[in-house]
Amino acid sequence: MLFIKVMSYPLNLPLKHTSTLSNSALIPLLLALDFGGTKHTAATIYRGAQRWHTHKRAFSPRNANASTDLEIMISLAREILAGEKPAAIGVSFGGPVDFTTGTVRLSHHVPGWETIQLRQLLEDEFNAPASVDNDANVAVLGEYRFGAGQGYDSLIYITVSTGVGGGWILNGQPWRGFGGMAGEIGHTVADPNGPICLCGKRGCVERLASGSYIAQQVREWLQEQPNQGQVLRTLVNDDLNAITGQSVSQAAAKGDALAIQALERAGWALGIGIGNAANLINPQLFVLGGGVTKAGERFWETLRRVARETALPEVDFEIAQAVLGDDAPLWGAVALAEDLLANVSPKFF
Amino acid sequence: MLFIKVMSYPLNLPLKHTSTLSNSALIPLLLALDFGGTKHTAATIYRGAQRWHTHKRAFSPRNANASTDLEIMISLAREILAGEKPAAIGVSFGGPVDFTTGTVRLSHHVPGWETIQLRQLLEDEFNAPASVDNDANVAVLGEYRFGAGQGYDSLIYITVSTGVGGGWILNGQPWRGFGGMAGEIGHTVADPNGPICLCGKRGCVERLASGSYIAQQVREWLQEQPNQGQVLRTLVNDDLNAITGQSVSQAAAKGDALAIQALERAGWALGIGIGNAANLINPQLFVLGGGVTKAGERFWETLRRVARETALPEVDFEIAQAVLGDDAPLWGAVALAEDLLANVSPKFF
Repeated sequence: MLFIKVMSYPLNLPLKHTSTLSNSALIPLLLALDFGGTKHTAATIYRGAQRWHTHKRAFSPRNANASTDLEIMISLAREILAGEKPAAIGVSFGGPVDFTTGTVRLSHHVPGWETIQLRQLLEDEFNAPASVDNDANVAVLGEYRFGAGQGYDSLIYITVSTGVGGGWILNGQPWRGFGGMAGEIGHTVADPNGPICLCGKRGCVERLASGSYIAQQVREWLQEQPNQGQVLRTLVNDDLNAITGQSVSQAAAKGDALAIQALERAGWALGIGIGNAANLINPQLFVLGGGVTKAGERFWETLRRVARETALPEVDFEIAQAVLGDDAPLWGAVALAEDLLANVSPKFF
Repeated sequence: MLFIKVMSYPLNLPLKHTSTLSNSALIPLLLALDFGGTKHTAATIYRGAQRWHTHKRAFSPRNANASTDLEIMISLAREILAGEKPAAIGVSFGGPVDFTTGTVRLSHHVPGWETIQLRQLLEDEFNAPASVDNDANVAVLGEYRFGAGQGYDSLIYITVSTGVGGGWILNGQPWRGFGGMAGEIGHTVADPNGPICLCGKRGCVERLASGSYIAQQVREWLQEQPNQGQVLRTLVNDDLNAITGQSVSQAAAKGDALAIQALERAGWALGIGIGNAANLINPQLFVLGGGVTKAGERFWETLRRVARETALPEVDFEIAQAVLGDDAPLWGAVALAEDLLANVSPKFF
């Protein structure tokens, strides 16, 4: 049932600081795990290193559940550890997590994850301390410690992909919110008269800017306007169901007017969301990652302009592109593991 | 030139905890100062007490400037101190302040406040340590330590009066933002197609919910619709220029349809702003104060409903009415002074 794709690369990390790569037995080995919706990644790294020691990814089978997810991940981890014991384990989980107890509340994609004590389970499995948080909080930690957020003290990382989510660092620490729900910039309202979002209300940032909604919007426009969008139609061989956020970006790059319009609306909505967040929290930096942020200069120009117009003139901020890509949660998991080493329970030694 | 109004009351504080009132010389006397736009208040209190020892308010003369403001405040303070030396001074200032240096950046109401080192100036004047912050940050500290926010760890205090402003407590500490500008919920966008705000953009929460804009809106409606708003017209003797946020509230309480419509729009805009802030930061509590929040149950019902609809179902929060009224900044100044006593520079002893 398991389809394990062995990745051959050690990734180079665009670190601003330098440190020497070492595999000495004296340097602790960290295990980083990323439970995504459909793909799972495990990696090991020596503390302080800039590149993975080992790194493997596996895709979920159809009809995955919590048991198959766990089976895949533990198998991946055992394989890349090759008998070594990790000094600490950091974990990113794609769904709400109670960070203090390391309990997964649920997965929005995979059944069976309700109230799974993932931290305890991994600690028992690998006899090492573990720290578990949701992917948005872990990804912002990754960009903060190893990516675009290095040297900044307050930032939000916004991922604009199938959905739009985010995570905060305030005062150099993750800000999770009272119930662990902070960072939901995707469900702030950009336009109260906009189209209805999956969450039930109108004109959420996510409803206007996520890749899947951009694709849906363009599909609707193409159905209404049979003479428009020739570039995009050609790109998907006239199969409107094949349109994705990515094909909209490609069509926009080739000058397709409808695609450009959809991406400008996405940039506008993100700009409103960012400007509102700047006025409310006044962070130093916004880091944007995810597929939609690869939509080209016009998208970025719109979002920067609208964010600047929405924020008060006295409210300064920077907007930067994420640098860790899909591995942001995995690097954040490394940061969680590093933090554990500073304060490890004696039961593991 | 000075018109000093001596207030005769010791205010009772609705404290949840109790402590004994004392004027023993062993208990430090704190000086709390509130530089408002047009009125200035000074008070003394014994550390840990629930009521003011002395409390006086003075109004600015016409053509006030920073010098007259300072002269009034120092005179007030000298009078209520009556020769006693304060152990510490907490200060609320109605305008942007660099908290770390205690330097006022400017006042939006009174000229001459640009780059005034208010902390240094007061420390020299009273030979005691001082702490200065802007009124929104100080007011939230007041409600957090002595008012509606007691026992909560993360909250925003929103004042809805002539303007709409706010201040955050996160993790039990004021969150001022990277440039000291956090809390500007009044300039988050509720409706991008709404009327133009003084800040230049459309449909800010402040543009739809502040007392002065509510009055302006109702005035415009009454001019357009000569047969509407009889209750309100009677209330202001047909002088539309006399309409204020307060008279709109009074008319709404008496069933005036236009007044009710204006307040429901204000409640709607605040609800959007609160729901967006809940999704972004997930605080435990929203505390609302200021004249407009006295507009009655219908206004509150609308804002609670819209805030609940705007926040994701998983995002919990409470909304409470502020309890300290106009004295919230003064109580916050007491908190600043108390904090100084925990860490006083030896130069003052």
